[in-house]
Amino acid sequence: MTTRRMGLNAVIFGLGSHEAGWRMPESDPLSSTNLEYWIDIARRAEAGGFDALFLGDVLALQQSADLHLSDALDPIVILSALAAVTKRIGLIGTASTSFDHPYHLARRFASLDHISRGRAGWNIVTSSNALEAQNFGLDVMPEHDQRYARAVDVVEATLALWNSWDEDARIVDKQAGRYLDPAKVRTVNHDGPFIRTRGPLNVPRSPQGRPLLAQAGSSEAGRDFAARYADLVFIVQSSLPEAQEFYADMKARAVRLGRSPESLRVFPGIVPIAAATHEAAEARLAQMNRFMIIEHVLAKLSEFLGTDLSSADLDAPLPAHVGSGAPNQSSQSRVAVLVGIARREQLTLRQLLSRLASGRGHLLAVGTGPAIAARMQEWCEVGAADGFNVMAPVMPQDLQSFINLVMPHLNISVGNKP
Amino acid sequence: MTTRRMGLNAVIFGLGSHEAGWRMPESDPLSSTNLEYWIDIARRAEAGGFDALFLGDVLALQQSADLHLSDALDPIVILSALAAVTKRIGLIGTASTSFDHPYHLARRFASLDHISRGRAGWNIVTSSNALEAQNFGLDVMPEHDQRYARAVDVVEATLALWNSWDEDARIVDKQAGRYLDPAKVRTVNHDGPFIRTRGPLNVPRSPQGRPLLAQAGSSEAGRDFAARYADLVFIVQSSLPEAQEFYADMKARAVRLGRSPESLRVFPGIVPIAAATHEAAEARLAQMNRFMIIEHVLAKLSEFLGTDLSSADLDAPLPAHVGSGAPNQSSQSRVAVLVGIARREQLTLRQLLSRLASGRGHLLAVGTGPAIAARMQEWCEVGAADGFNVMAPVMPQDLQSFINLVMPHLNISVGNKP
Repeated sequence: MTTRRMGLNAVIFGLGSHEAGWRMPESDPLSSTNLEYWIDIARRAEAGGFDALFLGDVLALQQSADLHLSDALDPIVILSALAAVTKRIGLIGTASTSFDHPYHLARRFASLDHISRGRAGWNIVTSSNALEAQNFGLDVMPEHDQRYARAVDVVEATLALWNSWDEDARIVDKQAGRYLDPAKVRTVNHDGPFIRTRGPLNVPRSPQGRPLLAQAGSSEAGRDFAARYADLVFIVQSSLPEAQEFYADMKARAVRLGRSPESLRVFPGIVPIAAATHEAAEARLAQMNRFMIIEHVLAKLSEFLGTDLSSADLDAPLPAHVGSGAPNQSSQSRVAVLVGIARREQLTLRQLLSRLASGRGHLLAVGTGPAIAARMQEWCEVGAADGFNVMAPVMPQDLQSFINLVMPHLNISVGNKP
Repeated sequence: MTTRRMGLNAVIFGLGSHEAGWRMPESDPLSSTNLEYWIDIARRAEAGGFDALFLGDVLALQQSADLHLSDALDPIVILSALAAVTKRIGLIGTASTSFDHPYHLARRFASLDHISRGRAGWNIVTSSNALEAQNFGLDVMPEHDQRYARAVDVVEATLALWNSWDEDARIVDKQAGRYLDPAKVRTVNHDGPFIRTRGPLNVPRSPQGRPLLAQAGSSEAGRDFAARYADLVFIVQSSLPEAQEFYADMKARAVRLGRSPESLRVFPGIVPIAAATHEAAEARLAQMNRFMIIEHVLAKLSEFLGTDLSSADLDAPLPAHVGSGAPNQSSQSRVAVLVGIARREQLTLRQLLSRLASGRGHLLAVGTGPAIAARMQEWCEVGAADGFNVMAPVMPQDLQSFINLVMPHLNISVGNKP
């Protein structure tokens, strides 16, 4: 075994990863617009030994707005506030390459990196939702490959802007009246297929040089993109063989591009429901699932799979034809994962819906602290993970249960960067 | 006299309003990228009784980057961080309508309003600098009227997004599984000449309903725009008659649009240099001016006026032809103000440069606390101001001097909103 440490990010999307989490007795759904809610989570995660907070984002109020909590404050606003009240924990926020300009992206994340003294991260997404497109003046999202082509251009321009200042550009010679060394701050004149920007950035080089870059695409274009740019890849694969395949593939791609395999870390998402006994953990999951609104999750699954499942038998397996049609291209690889789960585990449609509701198809780990820890340890030892994006189903309860019950059994040095 | 109170915003742009402030012995120019610098200023301003912090912004590193400190962190990042460490003070940030989309603008400022519990403000600018245009893929800025036409479209879309949620839309009925009342969250389907957006916003209605709106244009289009949308107008007029004209004009425009005159407040900028004696204050200004780099300020003035002044006699009045040519359209009204100052006060070119350097042509108030306070009081009593945007030339020293020496002599109830 090598001495590498398991990385742990606390993923936060609204009140937790479970669709119905807001209906749990202990949940306060109105709290997600209060800063106190975020400060409480950040402090728990920091004290509990997480490396970073990881904020997902979607640029639209999602369809079933009458049923589901999908409103969310801007991640950069939340993370900037949290920078002021935390000391050590990383602050990773999602922003889309499809709807923002590199000058803004480069500047915001560099600013966050400055005020947090080097704790900023950007989770790069291309967006895939038609509602997002319509909020930004398009009728539909551009095709998958077109979105990635723009993403490459946006990231290249953003990197160039971050590199437009040398670390020692601010000479601050009061006597001579020279604030900058002009040789160390350069225009970038990026002129790509989608993006033009002159530069330089109007923010000095940030403490990390550039923020950490995270990415989650698992399509061919997504893997290529991640191998080129990402420090951290967030994967949805929830079976050990699939995760091992993805892990090996990403490391190989990185090496082919001249990167060290360690420079690209692979983090599966894990939805932990930890309790003192296995039965208590299962009971907690069952409670959440009772609050799930079947029609709502079914509509989401139908959209994912590109197949109307509204009249399917909930207690039979996923119909055989599902997954063979022309799925929504934007979530093709997510479809393969979900269909794979259903077939492999011989789930009924109702069971698949529960899996989708609890954490969007990510690894669901229900049990005692030692059992969940052992599973995570195994994934790290057999080449399936360098760490995990921990998606607590209900905040802050399941995050705290993870800290109290799972963390003590993990073979990591809590409080240190992996 | 009415019972209205004088409003006071602390304007912060980098290390202060004086071009050469960073060269003062007490200045730490590297501090402006540290959160501690901003927290210190925010706490001084809050404790000192200011109503709001007001952060200017330009989306480019300005020309003479070798000489002048013009880098600046993103205002929304700074203000979000300050929301976490302040309780009462308003948080007004500049953002441009020319380079951002209403969905992002609406969401960011609503998010800031939520986390600050109703303290957010947006200073709406259209941007005028060719370098900004080039950072965002244009060669030059669109024409002045075109920029304002876009600004109207952007603000209308942004207002529609803020209005897409009713205050009581979140019903949070756990039992019924209804998070929102769908009748109280609406699409906006804004379809304007520049902007399309579907909505609704993915952020609930914010504590203020919408953030405070500030604006600074003084052209005809700028005044029209402010009369329609602004709660607060930031003016550059530095003589009493000019400010009175502007004040009366803005109130009249507001009334013609069916607004109450009190709903639009006019704040001239003031650059205070307060000291125990008039002589000490003058000496402080002279010290700052000694650090001014004449060629640099001359280049800026030349650009403003659209006239090359590099070979003009510094100790003679501004050449007679200046201001009659075709100036840079974007700063036409600023030009009129600067030329007006020079002619009215019979300044030499060198004196005009000092005025420009200390606070970009805003009212310069050098003297004892009581003298500065009396002047501010007069402006409020004779219909030239409802309050002031206080632009300390060197931070935090001149802000603290204002608080210590001027504030006690102002007839305002410190700590209350005006």
